[in-house]
Amino acid sequence: MTVSDMTALIKELRHIVGEPNVLADPEDCQCYGFDASRLKGCPECVVFPANTQEVAAIIRLANRNRTPVFPRGAGSGMVGGAIANRRGLALVLTRMNQIFEIDADNMLAVVQPGVVTAMLQERARQLGLFYPPDPASLKFSTLGGNVAMGAGGPRALKYGVTRDYVLSLQVVLPTGSQIRTGTRTAKGVVGYDLTRLMVGSEGTLGIFTELVLRLIPAPQCTRTLSVLFADLDEACRAVNAILKQRVVPSTIELMDRETLRVVDRYLQLGLPAEAEAMLLIEVDGRPSEVDQDLRTIEQTCNRSTPMELRIAHTEAERELLWRARRSVSPALGKISSGKINEDVTVPRSEIAALIQFTRTLARKHHLTIVCFGHAGDGNIHTNIMLDRDNQDELTRAEHAVEELFCRVLELGGTISGEHGIGIAKSPFLEWELGSEGVAAMWRIKQALDPLDILNPGKMFQPDRAFFRP
Amino acid sequence: MTVSDMTALIKELRHIVGEPNVLADPEDCQCYGFDASRLKGCPECVVFPANTQEVAAIIRLANRNRTPVFPRGAGSGMVGGAIANRRGLALVLTRMNQIFEIDADNMLAVVQPGVVTAMLQERARQLGLFYPPDPASLKFSTLGGNVAMGAGGPRALKYGVTRDYVLSLQVVLPTGSQIRTGTRTAKGVVGYDLTRLMVGSEGTLGIFTELVLRLIPAPQCTRTLSVLFADLDEACRAVNAILKQRVVPSTIELMDRETLRVVDRYLQLGLPAEAEAMLLIEVDGRPSEVDQDLRTIEQTCNRSTPMELRIAHTEAERELLWRARRSVSPALGKISSGKINEDVTVPRSEIAALIQFTRTLARKHHLTIVCFGHAGDGNIHTNIMLDRDNQDELTRAEHAVEELFCRVLELGGTISGEHGIGIAKSPFLEWELGSEGVAAMWRIKQALDPLDILNPGKMFQPDRAFFRP
Repeated sequence: MTVSDMTALIKELRHIVGEPNVLADPEDCQCYGFDASRLKGCPECVVFPANTQEVAAIIRLANRNRTPVFPRGAGSGMVGGAIANRRGLALVLTRMNQIFEIDADNMLAVVQPGVVTAMLQERARQLGLFYPPDPASLKFSTLGGNVAMGAGGPRALKYGVTRDYVLSLQVVLPTGSQIRTGTRTAKGVVGYDLTRLMVGSEGTLGIFTELVLRLIPAPQCTRTLSVLFADLDEACRAVNAILKQRVVPSTIELMDRETLRVVDRYLQLGLPAEAEAMLLIEVDGRPSEVDQDLRTIEQTCNRSTPMELRIAHTEAERELLWRARRSVSPALGKISSGKINEDVTVPRSEIAALIQFTRTLARKHHLTIVCFGHAGDGNIHTNIMLDRDNQDELTRAEHAVEELFCRVLELGGTISGEHGIGIAKSPFLEWELGSEGVAAMWRIKQALDPLDILNPGKMFQPDRAFFRP
Repeated sequence: MTVSDMTALIKELRHIVGEPNVLADPEDCQCYGFDASRLKGCPECVVFPANTQEVAAIIRLANRNRTPVFPRGAGSGMVGGAIANRRGLALVLTRMNQIFEIDADNMLAVVQPGVVTAMLQERARQLGLFYPPDPASLKFSTLGGNVAMGAGGPRALKYGVTRDYVLSLQVVLPTGSQIRTGTRTAKGVVGYDLTRLMVGSEGTLGIFTELVLRLIPAPQCTRTLSVLFADLDEACRAVNAILKQRVVPSTIELMDRETLRVVDRYLQLGLPAEAEAMLLIEVDGRPSEVDQDLRTIEQTCNRSTPMELRIAHTEAERELLWRARRSVSPALGKISSGKINEDVTVPRSEIAALIQFTRTLARKHHLTIVCFGHAGDGNIHTNIMLDRDNQDELTRAEHAVEELFCRVLELGGTISGEHGIGIAKSPFLEWELGSEGVAAMWRIKQALDPLDILNPGKMFQPDRAFFRP
């Protein structure tokens, strides 16, 4: 786009959203030129709409000018989904941050896309209600971003993920027309399920301007225990054994040997050197139920001779048990200047096989690979630790990632459980979906966005800068 | 299609699936010319493929010949979705009826589309697992049909509907190419959610040849109670009050005054004449939990002076409580030769308003309207009773349906909670979705089915024969 075209566009944008809600100074634009992936791509201008009509007007304008539009919430995505990789406009939805309604009778919330996830959870909690999806970023990521990326979290095992809580969306389509998908009711089968098509579409099929989210009754209490194992297989077998007892914990987090060592060094916990895996398990529900679950889990774990089993009896004890898990990210930050964090997911019965494979990979490529994550749903965050200035290590890491993805697919898994594709994983989309699968998705993209205005170069095209740590 | 074209096509079909698996005799074809909607449309031939490859070959052949293909399971759909309304081929999936695998560790089942829903439930139950979706037709309807129509059922309140249990589909697209959607894992965000796009697409976007379905641990026990109210509003308020106690029953069925009268006459139950509504409530889970729920429900209902509250203490008593609910359909069959059954759904808080509105409609149009259904999720089956030979009554009923749909949409509801659109409701699609919503869906249909081969004239075009009872 020429300078004079851009000047004219900015003028029109200011007309739509008001002078202060358009940024065009390159230094301001820089602030919207990255996300949590550390990929970079600076927009030519940044616009902050206040409502659906403004979003629609911006999109129609972009279509007339063939200007790419990059929708953005908090910019906390892990795969470069919010990066302005082809210049154009960053469309930032943080001004649209109202909770319009919490309907306690029908157990739903009506919100704007810029509401921070934790805000909704807090408001729901005050009414005895519960919005379960809990991506690690929930204190700053937005609901619009969560829905666009199909965010997950530790509670998926019992409660499902973001997509399971989206009832209805108001959407501005890539051509600027407005639709409302879904219904406010639990049931509804009128036409295609565009709600679910939009969830996880990563800003390529529409911009959500209002979300109706399902809430559920809040659990009355939560109990936590941690179990340390001298054998990884034993830990994984314990996970399946617990579930076979018909106990469905709200969370089963797993930390492998490498993770435990890094965390132990960071927190000086004095964990036994032979520890090969730790499970951190939470159950929630009514007090009687939760006590019974806790006993069942304890008995099940004790059948496989754990090194240590701790039950939190107070909130302070619970915090202590979570401390190791919560310290993983800062602890990893201490040992390396960078990392590649892959959110691969395998069938629960294959978790041990996956982690064993990462050990083989680490030896083969002379890398440190740290595995932790959500054992209940098979979503294991596989972190390859990197020195950012070591190009040779980066190349070895990239090879390791490719081998990891191959193995995950062989095990019946997926290359992304909760982060999505964006730019970072777009070269691998076809590995999982096959050429016919990608072709079908691309036909849908073209049908709804004939000019490729909305978040172009994401998901489908490998516009990917290779340096990711 | 000319006779000689059809003869050539049949020859090719016999080559694909084998001689005995193609029916071309008009009398045989008649048997595949209707479904539970009582709409009619006879195919020119009927083909029974055995596997994915055969389905794909048939679809490619149909594309070459521009022959419409009408996929079909048990033909138990309520909206004419399986009707061959434009001649062509009926593609019947009942030969593909194998349960390939029940993976107890990962809690999933791999099945062919022709498996009858109750069969999977029984096989899962034997392993302590549970497939919750329970459309009324489950003893004869197929899983492929359930997924294609997005089938619901009474258990939706606690357990969700069919769409919540579909992990992955093998799909033959309308052009004959094959894709696999979704993953075997609970989490997965790679590309667009084509699984959910396919669920409820009513045979217009693809033919499912293999389904991976999620299972959950089976509840240990179930308890049932029935409550009779002298006031409809009171019954509806009780539903919300129960849910506010954080008790989520597996089922809350509601029968209105008209339903109770019809059933009472049929079964000679001796129900009090002043009874205005009955709730039939089931809770499931662990024994201690279920007993506690039952007490909470009893206390909550007793706060609103019900006429009668009965708790089933034995399986025989449970059967007795369910008898009234299960007799609704045969009892309605006794009072009229026909009916229009609309599966409208409103937010739970609006159920009383909806039923009151049907009473107004009944008076205005001199009709008998009987309401019963799933109060927990707002899905109220609204039955307009008809004499099939009375054209005047039919016209009044059609007007009443249109007014009903308007009111349902005003109340924030949907015109179909679980039956779908098919032919019967296609004239009303735009009422709910708006022209932009329908246009977006039609663009997706065209993108995946450029020749309009798969189930043409369904959902979108009002090819509807008006006589529906």
